[in-house]
Amino acid sequence: MGEHKRIGILTSGGDCAGLNAAIRAAVYRAVGTYGWEVLGIRQATNGLMSRPPDAINLTIEKVQSILTHGGTMLGTTNKGNPFAFPMPDGSLLDRSNEIIEGYHLLGLDALIGIGGDGSLAILRKVAEQGNLNLVGIPKTIDNDVGSTELSIGYHTAATIATEAIDRLHFTAASHSRVMIVEVMGRDAGHIALRSGIAGGADVILIPEISYSLEKICDQIRERQKQGKNYCLIVVAEAVKTETGDAMTNTDFHGESRLRGIGQYLADKIAACSGAETRVTVLGHVQRGGTPTMTDRVIGSAFGVAAVDLIADQKYDRMVVWHNRQVESVPIAEAIAQYRAIDPNDILVKTARSMGICLGD
Amino acid sequence: MGEHKRIGILTSGGDCAGLNAAIRAAVYRAVGTYGWEVLGIRQATNGLMSRPPDAINLTIEKVQSILTHGGTMLGTTNKGNPFAFPMPDGSLLDRSNEIIEGYHLLGLDALIGIGGDGSLAILRKVAEQGNLNLVGIPKTIDNDVGSTELSIGYHTAATIATEAIDRLHFTAASHSRVMIVEVMGRDAGHIALRSGIAGGADVILIPEISYSLEKICDQIRERQKQGKNYCLIVVAEAVKTETGDAMTNTDFHGESRLRGIGQYLADKIAACSGAETRVTVLGHVQRGGTPTMTDRVIGSAFGVAAVDLIADQKYDRMVVWHNRQVESVPIAEAIAQYRAIDPNDILVKTARSMGICLGD
Amino acid sequence: MGEHKRIGILTSGGDCAGLNAAIRAAVYRAVGTYGWEVLGIRQATNGLMSRPPDAINLTIEKVQSILTHGGTMLGTTNKGNPFAFPMPDGSLLDRSNEIIEGYHLLGLDALIGIGGDGSLAILRKVAEQGNLNLVGIPKTIDNDVGSTELSIGYHTAATIATEAIDRLHFTAASHSRVMIVEVMGRDAGHIALRSGIAGGADVILIPEISYSLEKICDQIRERQKQGKNYCLIVVAEAVKTETGDAMTNTDFHGESRLRGIGQYLADKIAACSGAETRVTVLGHVQRGGTPTMTDRVIGSAFGVAAVDLIADQKYDRMVVWHNRQVESVPIAEAIAQYRAIDPNDILVKTARSMGICLGD
Amino acid sequence: MGEHKRIGILTSGGDCAGLNAAIRAAVYRAVGTYGWEVLGIRQATNGLMSRPPDAINLTIEKVQSILTHGGTMLGTTNKGNPFAFPMPDGSLLDRSNEIIEGYHLLGLDALIGIGGDGSLAILRKVAEQGNLNLVGIPKTIDNDVGSTELSIGYHTAATIATEAIDRLHFTAASHSRVMIVEVMGRDAGHIALRSGIAGGADVILIPEISYSLEKICDQIRERQKQGKNYCLIVVAEAVKTETGDAMTNTDFHGESRLRGIGQYLADKIAACSGAETRVTVLGHVQRGGTPTMTDRVIGSAFGVAAVDLIADQKYDRMVVWHNRQVESVPIAEAIAQYRAIDPNDILVKTARSMGICLGD
Repeated sequence: MGEHKRIGILTSGGDCAGLNAAIRAAVYRAVGTYGWEVLGIRQATNGLMSRPPDAINLTIEKVQSILTHGGTMLGTTNKGNPFAFPMPDGSLLDRSNEIIEGYHLLGLDALIGIGGDGSLAILRKVAEQGNLNLVGIPKTIDNDVGSTELSIGYHTAATIATEAIDRLHFTAASHSRVMIVEVMGRDAGHIALRSGIAGGADVILIPEISYSLEKICDQIRERQKQGKNYCLIVVAEAVKTETGDAMTNTDFHGESRLRGIGQYLADKIAACSGAETRVTVLGHVQRGGTPTMTDRVIGSAFGVAAVDLIADQKYDRMVVWHNRQVESVPIAEAIAQYRAIDPNDILVKTARSMGICLGD
Repeated sequence: MGEHKRIGILTSGGDCAGLNAAIRAAVYRAVGTYGWEVLGIRQATNGLMSRPPDAINLTIEKVQSILTHGGTMLGTTNKGNPFAFPMPDGSLLDRSNEIIEGYHLLGLDALIGIGGDGSLAILRKVAEQGNLNLVGIPKTIDNDVGSTELSIGYHTAATIATEAIDRLHFTAASHSRVMIVEVMGRDAGHIALRSGIAGGADVILIPEISYSLEKICDQIRERQKQGKNYCLIVVAEAVKTETGDAMTNTDFHGESRLRGIGQYLADKIAACSGAETRVTVLGHVQRGGTPTMTDRVIGSAFGVAAVDLIADQKYDRMVVWHNRQVESVPIAEAIAQYRAIDPNDILVKTARSMGICLGD
Repeated sequence: MGEHKRIGILTSGGDCAGLNAAIRAAVYRAVGTYGWEVLGIRQATNGLMSRPPDAINLTIEKVQSILTHGGTMLGTTNKGNPFAFPMPDGSLLDRSNEIIEGYHLLGLDALIGIGGDGSLAILRKVAEQGNLNLVGIPKTIDNDVGSTELSIGYHTAATIATEAIDRLHFTAASHSRVMIVEVMGRDAGHIALRSGIAGGADVILIPEISYSLEKICDQIRERQKQGKNYCLIVVAEAVKTETGDAMTNTDFHGESRLRGIGQYLADKIAACSGAETRVTVLGHVQRGGTPTMTDRVIGSAFGVAAVDLIADQKYDRMVVWHNRQVESVPIAEAIAQYRAIDPNDILVKTARSMGICLGD
Repeated sequence: MGEHKRIGILTSGGDCAGLNAAIRAAVYRAVGTYGWEVLGIRQATNGLMSRPPDAINLTIEKVQSILTHGGTMLGTTNKGNPFAFPMPDGSLLDRSNEIIEGYHLLGLDALIGIGGDGSLAILRKVAEQGNLNLVGIPKTIDNDVGSTELSIGYHTAATIATEAIDRLHFTAASHSRVMIVEVMGRDAGHIALRSGIAGGADVILIPEISYSLEKICDQIRERQKQGKNYCLIVVAEAVKTETGDAMTNTDFHGESRLRGIGQYLADKIAACSGAETRVTVLGHVQRGGTPTMTDRVIGSAFGVAAVDLIADQKYDRMVVWHNRQVESVPIAEAIAQYRAIDPNDILVKTARSMGICLGD
């Protein structure tokens, strides 16, 4: 079993479904198989910056019932980028050394970071600076980490979006309305494209493909000619206006969103088509909820594999899902391969074949 | 079986889950049991105003597969109150006589109207004026029709709201946020109260109870003292500001909502408590979706009972659910008994017992 | 708030969804509102027979997260009727006095018993014998406790059965099969009737109505003539053979079921109709699972109301759901009013109207 | 767009969720994109053996609403292997030439066959014999077609199994029982392994790993020592007894199953461990139901890609899902690569790490 180790685990960035499955599996593997200690670091890197560091000892007892729980038992409250941390006086401070110090204060031999490409890039920079032993697990509902076929959280989010579209179809048809559903996807359109195909949308707008309002209104009019007086439009929150303005407020620092792309489109489409429009912003329900079978399974497999990377002293690597198995790649490579939707993707082709307007 | 009849059926007002179960059951009963004809009138009273009237012959074949479908197969597009119908030139016209004429043009012996108290009040006025044979079936996600324990659509809406609250709990806790969920309920707080209790909310705001922002922020601070840095608030869309301003845009004429009570509260609560707040407006997903077992069962029972009222020539009555059975009451009485939430309701007491803040 | 009390709570009989909501609400009300102590007695009356009694102190902390959990946190392992308790040597012993003694050993002022009519009858007999202060909460997926419109667990069970029927429709149609679904209901056909109507079954067999195999096969042949080569049959587990033989093994003492009424019918129907038949026995999934909104709400309301009966020293009573409120009735009256399905019930009429064969 | 074509499509073998998505997408692509004709052949190869052939013209109108429907709109009633077809007199007849003749009678240019490896092997043999243009789409809830990462139907089946396990956990714990869930998987243990991991099972038995009853009872006793008096066992229906006897009746010819491996294990485990055991056989609910997002998406993508193979005159090939895209491989190669679970699979390792007993 090799030498005894004490490892840390943290979740960083937006929460999603399946994080707890990964935490649980890492604990089972590290404690149950190898007999190590696992410290759960609370609130992402903030737990390492706190003094004393904010961490709890994770036993199998503590994690065994969390498999079906959404979110993360460790919390992931974001107080800012540790390299430019917002201080009470408004200044930005580089607090990366405090994270390194926290790691040593806890006596860690290695750290598992569960995060998206942004979070992993920051963690990697800290680890490099402090010569820390880091292993990454990809998590992002956007599914835009290029080197892995699946990231934790994406499948549940796309499933919830599909379920919502299923529901909205009926009310759209009953009221002869154009129903616009704004789904998550801060950078990429994967959720919108998948849930739009699965839900039988009439229009899908993704940030990877520029749209024309005229094309959308053509689709609405075309459907009206066929006697279908309703239309279901799925739009990723990251889609910009025709003139390129971002409509999405960031999730940072507590500003709340006033008006997203869904509402913007509703007004424009009502004006150009004369149709009655309604918007549903799915929002946070996509992050929460009981993880799907898929997110529980990949979360569990990732947790086990991440611990095994540490057992093999293969640091600075991220686990990836590839062809039904878990492999690993250098974190640097993983986060460099951003995966937007390719215009030649089979799902883009599939959507077009179904007569779905992609806005172009 | 008595004499042959030709009856009409229409759905009016906002769509919801279970309408198709009622339509289907009425057709099975009228056509299958009594051998009558049933005409499905499209788009509520608009179908009777159209010339020729917009109606389709409903056979068992046409309705047998709609039991699990949300919405209404007949449509319910609202173009305005027939007694003050908005004309293209901006004027308001009394078109009630056209509805009466439409009824006769179709050769109807009786009409089943499925609607909320507003719709049924209008239908009743038309029926009285034209001496039409009207029978009503209550439908409203608000569940505020007083004479019936259940109205079609309410159970599904409250169930979907509960499911959303279940999901939001995890993400609220993971991010130490105050999460505000705005649920439907244009007049009454039934959905908010039920789903808030079922979902384990920390605060529930309903139009029947005035709230104080200070009380809400007290609850948030109280929870923080107990180490619970998150809070889940369920608010009915009809709740007004502390100063009594309505934040809900009506659903009429296509104006879309810019900013509801949820967003209003999010800003106020962020200011008074310093907490990070997020809003989810559930919106139209609550209307759509596969009806729950309950809405399918009461919809079916109502459809059968409404046809039986016609067979018995008991007109001007509405079917109601009472003590596991279907009874009937005069429509006039039914719509007069508006049911707001009583402050002494067992569910109000239950919520308070659970430590849920009702804002007062 | 009156004097301080120490009360006990136990769950008895088969588990179901919503029990935890009732336990949780009772603790919130007793501890939170009144400042009492609550002891959770484990494994039904067995916990009171154990020495020392098997009970845990229930704090709000311990129950706050169980609202969405199926089953019962207190366990409900049935080792036998305390008045005729099976001993290791095979004899039956009256151990009721040990329950009374256990109640006093724990220093209880009152006991809340959550159970079906069988369990409550036994508890009442013990309470009478020992002059114990008992309050009852009705729980039974069969929904056959006559004095209450709803019992805990029924709504979730019927909802899960409906969902299963929805799924089986498609596979029945794809394979041109007669698909038989055996649902729970050891004494009454409420689940079968509700889920059969909600799921659009073709045949529903309940213990309250005798069936003829010939009538069922007629229905199958009638459908075949209409080009519908499949048939969906919902049967309550308590239904007997045409000759009156029970096919349901009891749940006691660990014997497992070899062959139920579903399989019996499958063989008979295959023989008489020539159709390919398949059976699905839903079984225990109907008990488990996240409680529906309804079961969480009535469970919570019942828990609060039961504690209030104790506060008011109204013993020997059971809470009931009536016309959207909670009332109470003497336990003796409650369990005397067994509620089978009345042949004139609106749902029986509704089923017949839908062309559903009830076997007669 | 190339020359006009008339193509056929059929579904063969057991039904599952996602077949309609594939049929729908093939029609949209062939009719909508290429302007071809599509004939839907009913009841698998039986439709080609009928005279006249049993086929319907598939328009976009006819398929547009079937995306969310389980099963197959074309039916898949299995009357036997066309190379050894059971005749009324009990003899077996080679009727493959009738299929070839049926293909020509319908004037088909190509045929899309949706089936598992067994069905596709038969179709390929017919196509080779008759020089027919065949394209395959993989479908099997077992997910044992080696060359594709996903086959239609698997994801929904494993998801439904997971949901059932979630529900059974609570009732197992409440009653201190050993709960055995028999899930589908006639040849491979993929559903059992995935749903067992996702559902947090204690024991998972799959046909790829031999089990010892003693090891299972050890696990039960080990848990009892830890105070966990319940155990959840997931077993694939194809698992044999320790002495190698098959317990699964085939699905052919209408014999119904009397007793499967679940019941067998329940009796053995009750005897060796003394625990109370209960069995749930999930059965056909796993095939039915609304397809998951994943099955709708891959079904849609497969349908489009299969038509494109025909457009490119690439026959005798099967579409496969690989690394988020659709590719194709020779059918002969596809069906040769049977995919059992590898003992070194990451999910086997994951299960063992979670402390799950695999019976060995």
